[in-house]
Amino acid sequence: MTGLFITLEGPDGCGKSTQIAPLADYLRSIGRTVFTTREPGGTAISDQVRQILMAMKNTSMHPRTELLLFLSARAQLVEEVIRPRLAAGEIVISDRYGDSTLAYQGYGHGYDRDTIRRLLEFATGGLKPDLTLLIDVDVEEGLRRRQVGGGEWNRLDAYQLEFHRRVREGYHELAKLEPARWVTINGEQTPEMVQLSIRQAVDERIV
Amino acid sequence: MTGLFITLEGPDGCGKSTQIAPLADYLRSIGRTVFTTREPGGTAISDQVRQILMAMKNTSMHPRTELLLFLSARAQLVEEVIRPRLAAGEIVISDRYGDSTLAYQGYGHGYDRDTIRRLLEFATGGLKPDLTLLIDVDVEEGLRRRQVGGGEWNRLDAYQLEFHRRVREGYHELAKLEPARWVTINGEQTPEMVQLSIRQAVDERIV
Repeated sequence: MTGLFITLEGPDGCGKSTQIAPLADYLRSIGRTVFTTREPGGTAISDQVRQILMAMKNTSMHPRTELLLFLSARAQLVEEVIRPRLAAGEIVISDRYGDSTLAYQGYGHGYDRDTIRRLLEFATGGLKPDLTLLIDVDVEEGLRRRQVGGGEWNRLDAYQLEFHRRVREGYHELAKLEPARWVTINGEQTPEMVQLSIRQAVDERIV
Repeated sequence: MTGLFITLEGPDGCGKSTQIAPLADYLRSIGRTVFTTREPGGTAISDQVRQILMAMKNTSMHPRTELLLFLSARAQLVEEVIRPRLAAGEIVISDRYGDSTLAYQGYGHGYDRDTIRRLLEFATGGLKPDLTLLIDVDVEEGLRRRQVGGGEWNRLDAYQLEFHRRVREGYHELAKLEPARWVTINGEQTPEMVQLSIRQAVDERIV
């Protein structure tokens, strides 16, 4: 068996995080070894970086510092965990990966995308997912879900509606650029239907 | 008065670190406000990154993780300290800066230099020194000084003689690429003569 690297992408509130555990269960039920991860973290060093990123006291952190810290945590995760597990034939599922950086920092915040691609290529040593599942929801729907689901709907969300629109359009463009890697899934279906669509896309890669 | 950003570069053992305090004293004696710094560190966030870089337990750190952590500390230092001080007309002197990354990781370790330039450009927001002083010493002389000065001369140094040769050649090439920014100083003179040469180069920029 060869390893398979699956990433889930999409806006906050799209429901991707809740899809990972049932997907992992399904893959284990058909005999595969599955490792799931979520950034930033996943190694002792990445967890130390995570602490800096999350510490309330670090309010003066510059956006470029933040991005480089995310990338450093990712670099360590790739080399210490993801590559060895893929080499051992495991399936690795990550909640967000490099495409989030392109969608949020590139399309959303307007950083030069060619530069971000270079940064990502460097940080990951060129490791790309075999399959990226975009859980696509309307921007207002995603924000509404965060509100209903207990996540706070705040003034910032309203201000940032345009930002989230750019992120979503960015995801669509990324999916068009590499159609063999991306599968776009309608995230406005029921969670059960989303899971079914995910399994169909994954089945095509492991059969 | 306009700010001036001075960096000192050169191999370990070239004596650059001991030249900074007398240079700062000189510039203060002629009425300038001077800030000296040494990477990684210099801000609260950069110091947290420094702790990760220096922790003995982090032996499994990948070279790319390390480079990204250095860059994240530098990004924060540039935005929080260096830029504001230069804008206020101060002179900032840094013991190593981006050219060390190019010399050591690029020329020394063989990472793609165009990629490193992009990483540096991103991390620093394009901030380059106004003046870079290369304290140039023969590779064997530099290693010998570390031994005599109490720094341990070890088996690794011998193995890495070729590495240090590539770093030195890299510095020479960098100086050739931007002759208006670089001044190469013979580091095999007495420390007093090195200081004199440094002051001459600096005087030309502040008069």
